[in-house]
Amino acid sequence: MRIGFIGLGGMGTAMARNLVAAGHTVLVWNRSPGPVAELAAAGAVSASIEEAFATGTVLSMLADDRAVTERLLDPAALAAAPAGALHVNMATISTALAERAAREYAERGLRYLAAPVFGRTEAAAAGNLTIVTAGEPAAIAEVQPLFDVLGRRTWTVGEVPAHANLVKILGNYLVACSIEAMAEATTVIEAGGLDPALFIEVLTDNLFPGPVFAGYGSMIGKRSYEPVNFRLPLGFKDVGLALSAGQERNVPLPFGGVLRDAFIEALAHGQGEQDWAAVAETARRRAGLA
Amino acid sequence: MRIGFIGLGGMGTAMARNLVAAGHTVLVWNRSPGPVAELAAAGAVSASIEEAFATGTVLSMLADDRAVTERLLDPAALAAAPAGALHVNMATISTALAERAAREYAERGLRYLAAPVFGRTEAAAAGNLTIVTAGEPAAIAEVQPLFDVLGRRTWTVGEVPAHANLVKILGNYLVACSIEAMAEATTVIEAGGLDPALFIEVLTDNLFPGPVFAGYGSMIGKRSYEPVNFRLPLGFKDVGLALSAGQERNVPLPFGGVLRDAFIEALAHGQGEQDWAAVAETARRRAGLA
Amino acid sequence: MRIGFIGLGGMGTAMARNLVAAGHTVLVWNRSPGPVAELAAAGAVSASIEEAFATGTVLSMLADDRAVTERLLDPAALAAAPAGALHVNMATISTALAERAAREYAERGLRYLAAPVFGRTEAAAAGNLTIVTAGEPAAIAEVQPLFDVLGRRTWTVGEVPAHANLVKILGNYLVACSIEAMAEATTVIEAGGLDPALFIEVLTDNLFPGPVFAGYGSMIGKRSYEPVNFRLPLGFKDVGLALSAGQERNVPLPFGGVLRDAFIEALAHGQGEQDWAAVAETARRRAGLA
Amino acid sequence: MRIGFIGLGGMGTAMARNLVAAGHTVLVWNRSPGPVAELAAAGAVSASIEEAFATGTVLSMLADDRAVTERLLDPAALAAAPAGALHVNMATISTALAERAAREYAERGLRYLAAPVFGRTEAAAAGNLTIVTAGEPAAIAEVQPLFDVLGRRTWTVGEVPAHANLVKILGNYLVACSIEAMAEATTVIEAGGLDPALFIEVLTDNLFPGPVFAGYGSMIGKRSYEPVNFRLPLGFKDVGLALSAGQERNVPLPFGGVLRDAFIEALAHGQGEQDWAAVAETARRRAGLA
Repeated sequence: MRIGFIGLGGMGTAMARNLVAAGHTVLVWNRSPGPVAELAAAGAVSASIEEAFATGTVLSMLADDRAVTERLLDPAALAAAPAGALHVNMATISTALAERAAREYAERGLRYLAAPVFGRTEAAAAGNLTIVTAGEPAAIAEVQPLFDVLGRRTWTVGEVPAHANLVKILGNYLVACSIEAMAEATTVIEAGGLDPALFIEVLTDNLFPGPVFAGYGSMIGKRSYEPVNFRLPLGFKDVGLALSAGQERNVPLPFGGVLRDAFIEALAHGQGEQDWAAVAETARRRAGLA
Repeated sequence: MRIGFIGLGGMGTAMARNLVAAGHTVLVWNRSPGPVAELAAAGAVSASIEEAFATGTVLSMLADDRAVTERLLDPAALAAAPAGALHVNMATISTALAERAAREYAERGLRYLAAPVFGRTEAAAAGNLTIVTAGEPAAIAEVQPLFDVLGRRTWTVGEVPAHANLVKILGNYLVACSIEAMAEATTVIEAGGLDPALFIEVLTDNLFPGPVFAGYGSMIGKRSYEPVNFRLPLGFKDVGLALSAGQERNVPLPFGGVLRDAFIEALAHGQGEQDWAAVAETARRRAGLA
Repeated sequence: MRIGFIGLGGMGTAMARNLVAAGHTVLVWNRSPGPVAELAAAGAVSASIEEAFATGTVLSMLADDRAVTERLLDPAALAAAPAGALHVNMATISTALAERAAREYAERGLRYLAAPVFGRTEAAAAGNLTIVTAGEPAAIAEVQPLFDVLGRRTWTVGEVPAHANLVKILGNYLVACSIEAMAEATTVIEAGGLDPALFIEVLTDNLFPGPVFAGYGSMIGKRSYEPVNFRLPLGFKDVGLALSAGQERNVPLPFGGVLRDAFIEALAHGQGEQDWAAVAETARRRAGLA
Repeated sequence: MRIGFIGLGGMGTAMARNLVAAGHTVLVWNRSPGPVAELAAAGAVSASIEEAFATGTVLSMLADDRAVTERLLDPAALAAAPAGALHVNMATISTALAERAAREYAERGLRYLAAPVFGRTEAAAAGNLTIVTAGEPAAIAEVQPLFDVLGRRTWTVGEVPAHANLVKILGNYLVACSIEAMAEATTVIEAGGLDPALFIEVLTDNLFPGPVFAGYGSMIGKRSYEPVNFRLPLGFKDVGLALSAGQERNVPLPFGGVLRDAFIEALAHGQGEQDWAAVAETARRRAGLA
């Protein structure tokens, strides 16, 4: 297929590269030129956002609501899209923005899918993402071959695009809650004179297998938060998305309030460049161990 | 081996039955006679606590600190134990009581191991528990053949018995935190018009496999909390053990405060006979969905 | 003085009326015409925002950040103001907006004061407000005669306008915390079989005198939340302002997280038209008393 | 009157001294001899607990549940009391212990009043306490002359002694909540570049007058926590009494969970000898200001 791809951060770069490798013609755009050159060397085509939209099928992986609003709801970009063009937004954005995007695209005779992903950059590079999508079934069928390149599995959660974002936001909320729970538990373990890494090993052996507990647990148990895969302020942004999603639906989120404070405290202590798992240090600091 | 086994609740009954089936001579005691008769029919020997202790090797699985204090620190029972007798306490008790028990046993020339377990009654019946033990290595070696009957794996976390209880208490804390996190997340999902069971299916497919998220998640996603495997007040008791373990080591546990309130609220709404996973209904009630 | 007054809600109407009564010529504007007619009958002059700004001295009392942004940062309005015109913003707005307003006014050669107030509509009607102002001393001196009409006392907290908003926001935060604290305490009292109104009477007799504890305490103790002086969603907005003020300065606010959830839960239970003191019902509901 | 007085800490000493000065014959007992000698020099009579009880009217002011259980439920002491003797327990104890004491006294034909007090040592010295009592009206009438010496006002909250303790416990809860609320608010103020002491001055001028906000607020605003009037671990104990009172009546206390963590964190940072108002430093520490 001939497609556009907008947003070449760590995730987007790995994803676009896989699409190129699978034989697709990929017109890529990014705010800064470095990643574009890198992708072009791998066979992609450097393009403007308008050119990307002109292909009729655009995937995007931008950083946040602000970037999505600026780039993908830009009237000039949308004007460049042929009638019925399909945009697949794979970023983690608010459900409010997803609802607005779906509405504005429909008003212009364009089609919009939400398809956020679970998985970090290694999973993206390995074509091993979990994709959660929602929207018009025909549109999903159209890009399923692209999803098959990018991910290990695609979950369709209905026809309302914002619902896919809701699943992604609350999924990340579960991850953040798991990090905080392990932080608190390992701090008691450490204060009690036991090795937190051993505790994590026992718990992930059977009760809590899987990448979240084993992966973040290992980082927390060893207090080793390198390499930085997902910066702490981005994690804080995602906690904010969950709190907003709850607030808009009148759902109190008491764990979310605790998470909010833990992230703010980490930022107050200069942890803004660390991986979000390092928010676990907040629990140690409060216990006088840091 | 000829051993004593004290405490025949759901867990203890399944465990003692497996020990009998493995060919051991098991002298069983329980506060109420029903389970004793049941075990005797399966080949166990009905006994007094003193007779159980007189075997020199006693396993116990009692309900809580109070029961352990009454039965296992009872001077008459301890007086019946031969010098060097070994008691293996497999219950979930406080670290404070474990420390006291270890001290009192040592003063009397007796030996004490902590060996709490992870797993519910099905796991106990299948000999599939995860056993976490701590204490004198020679004593552990002595009862390892019994542990091999009862569990799939034994983790040794050092020579201080209370450390095994600490692992168990904080492990249960992670379970309780996971239940609350899923409760909050699925409530937003439900309020957003999506199926919570689908959300749980997506999340446990890859990020959160394993018995806690899949098992409790399924109950929460479907709002189906039967059969009652672990009553809500027992879960509340375990949250209290974690809060105490934190307090005694000067570790704040903000998620623990949230859990405490969620359980109290569930009890205030008459959920005392339900499975502890049903504490998830608190989140729905707060959102006006219940 | 000849002045403009923008925003005739309950507070603004009472304030503008006092300024008219004190002999000032007051050009009033409001989004809906009813209050304008009422004020005109009392001697005020109906005007456009531009006419109000043309007086060179404008006081405003608008509902929230959005209204302030639309009306008072409107280029047309600002263009109508003579050089050096002074705007006194008495609304409860975010410090971020106060900072932006001060900057934009300065860029246009206009002057900006923040002067939020403590006190409800009765205090406004009685000219009994507590005014907290910040900004250029000469500008404050210029409008001090107006403040003397409106309030019992003016506190000047420096030359940075946003600082006055910070005092107001955190002051309201103390009020919201006091309401929640009384709600929790009286719920235990009620569950314990004692009369909450008597408890409030004992506590406000000596330890907690003053309008917040006596006033809101009386409402909570008697569970009588009429008349509605300050609607619950406005209180929720103010809690949000405090949380944002904390977040922007890296200050965790754990009580704020609790308040946020209590207000959301009240909204989920249909309390959106009640006085914000009625958020106290959340505590009773959680305890199974409602 | 000829009475016994048990417990000569800071509060008890001041109270007993006033009773002596008012012309009563006061038989005093204390665990350590220093305060007894001091009181004897002032005209009191050194006595055993039994002798104190033998007077038929005993007031007590002990530290906590443990001390009350050891001294005032001691069979030997109770045996020394003549039939119908009256014990007035003025300490801050749990409602559970108050209920047990009332029951045990009644079983022995003795009478029991709860009469906890609000006020610190200066108020005790000045005979300016606020006394909250509950119990049999005739018994209250009997000791009202003593209350009139000790306090500025006596509140009677019914005939169930534990109810007076409930009022005291929840009253202290309101104080603790006020301290935390001021701690959070002043931390935002400080982080925003304003003087916390000025903020407190504005807020206590009108909205929050009275000893709690003005007194503790001044300490917090100036970060000056001397002299130590009420040690931080005692404040933590009182927060625990409120949490227990809530738990026993199925009342969630979310602010209480926050308080619990703030006190634990203060203890983890070595603040155990400071005044409980210094728990405010926790908020500053979390914001990276300490």
